[in-house]
Amino acid sequence: MSQPQYLPPLRRVAICGGTHGNEMSGVYLVKHWLQDPSELQRSTFQVTPFVGNPRAVEQCVRYTGRDLNRTFAAAFLNTKASDSDFQEIQRAQEINQIFGPKGSSQAYDFMLDLHNTTANMGCCLLLKSEFSLLSIHMCNYIQKHCTVRHCPILVCQASGEEASFMMSVAKHGLALELGPQPQGVARADLLAKMRTIVACALDFIELFNKGTLFPAFEIEAYIPVERKDFPRYPNGEISAVIHPNLQDKDFQLLKPGDPVFQTFDGEDILHDGDDTFFPVFINEAAYYEKKTAFWKTKKETFAQPALQKAF
Amino acid sequence: MSQPQYLPPLRRVAICGGTHGNEMSGVYLVKHWLQDPSELQRSTFQVTPFVGNPRAVEQCVRYTGRDLNRTFAAAFLNTKASDSDFQEIQRAQEINQIFGPKGSSQAYDFMLDLHNTTANMGCCLLLKSEFSLLSIHMCNYIQKHCTVRHCPILVCQASGEEASFMMSVAKHGLALELGPQPQGVARADLLAKMRTIVACALDFIELFNKGTLFPAFEIEAYIPVERKDFPRYPNGEISAVIHPNLQDKDFQLLKPGDPVFQTFDGEDILHDGDDTFFPVFINEAAYYEKKTAFWKTKKETFAQPALQKAF
Repeated sequence: MSQPQYLPPLRRVAICGGTHGNEMSGVYLVKHWLQDPSELQRSTFQVTPFVGNPRAVEQCVRYTGRDLNRTFAAAFLNTKASDSDFQEIQRAQEINQIFGPKGSSQAYDFMLDLHNTTANMGCCLLLKSEFSLLSIHMCNYIQKHCTVRHCPILVCQASGEEASFMMSVAKHGLALELGPQPQGVARADLLAKMRTIVACALDFIELFNKGTLFPAFEIEAYIPVERKDFPRYPNGEISAVIHPNLQDKDFQLLKPGDPVFQTFDGEDILHDGDDTFFPVFINEAAYYEKKTAFWKTKKETFAQPALQKAF
Repeated sequence: MSQPQYLPPLRRVAICGGTHGNEMSGVYLVKHWLQDPSELQRSTFQVTPFVGNPRAVEQCVRYTGRDLNRTFAAAFLNTKASDSDFQEIQRAQEINQIFGPKGSSQAYDFMLDLHNTTANMGCCLLLKSEFSLLSIHMCNYIQKHCTVRHCPILVCQASGEEASFMMSVAKHGLALELGPQPQGVARADLLAKMRTIVACALDFIELFNKGTLFPAFEIEAYIPVERKDFPRYPNGEISAVIHPNLQDKDFQLLKPGDPVFQTFDGEDILHDGDDTFFPVFINEAAYYEKKTAFWKTKKETFAQPALQKAF
């Protein structure tokens, strides 16, 4: 058995809802917790819920100027934001000041970021590519102990890409991506699942802080390979939609020759490569403008050492 | 057997997509038909597809200033629109000039208006309260002959209320309301169903124009009784979501004591009235701001006389 890794206890945890203002599970949960934080209380650490993008929440839109969840990169955090810049740049800097600075020893210990998707992603756990041992131990704990079953792990950017996500501000982070849920709608079933997973994540931190030894494990995660766009006309408009056989089939293997799109003329477009992959974020509303019909991912197994609090 | 009613043939039919700019089945179908209208062609009448609110479509939002589909009322159509007014008022006047004027003998014969909803409404046929005999015969024909099954009829405003909908511009009208589909997303399954119902509606007009006698019938339709709001905190924010037992149960009878909402504290709110009703538009994203969690409807049976073209 490999030697456990020792990490310091976690004292300050932030939970963000409304990083995207129309993803309502997190928006309503965080607003509720700001009124009544009792269910977030644990004995060994402090939890701070907050609304990521209040102006976007107010208007019930993803963002008002630019996607806040792509704004936590050095290029935005380290420039002087002027009045003519999008408000999200200023907001990212504020958040970085309160919960970071990103990459520093003053940063919060953990950031949990709550999202929804219109894709049939179930209860997906999102990690950044340079994920911490603590974060993936949390995922493993959720998969093994949470009453919400089937929480696949997805790494949300390609290796080497700078993490510009909200969760990258703290020392460790995890984003929840629950779907399918339309933008601007809160479904009771997904709200309850998100709440249960958050409670389980906090329980994990409590156990860690109290000295529990979390054994070594192997775990599967989906790694992005490519973002696939819709077929488009020369004017840039899409010329086909996700094929009915692919719709809602997130995390299911797609093979050469499988149907991928259907044109408005009724023609099927098949996967003409010779690669197999697991599509995710299939038909996510917010990704039409990002020129993404789905992400291609591969499944990898990661061996992780045991973890315990440093005494 | 009752005497048939005789009506003049239909010569000009308009099909609108994008009355709401983020309801994508109609947006993409109409854009496709503007490029290739061949599937709309029939021998006895002319079909004109058009985009209802192009600026909203461009931004992928329901509307930019005010809801276009509540703007076809005399108060908006008959005032001089100034530059400071919302663009939808000007657009409603343009549409009224091209396809109306509403209530006049110059108006187009038929307006088919294509919508989506985030609610589980299936393939719903929407009529205005003062529906024409021709429109309800079209619904009956769709219910009996269309390969898309289960197309419930819903009257979309209370009796006596002025019709301010797009479809009210022409002499006869029908709106399709297909769901569930998130805003900003096109699902292939709903796109295909909408296309099939449109073809069936055009087939009905063709048969009517060719002199087919459509016999008398009785038909069920859902009539709105009340719009029910979410429970709210004093500050106006919602304090509960649609109960998981009610979510997706559009057109299913709700009885006294049945659960309706679930508060963020986890408490169930039951229907405490002594009325039974059929809820529709349950958890429609666009209705949060209209303070509507769902519509209560009752089911009524309408006896309709036979219909034939006047010779």
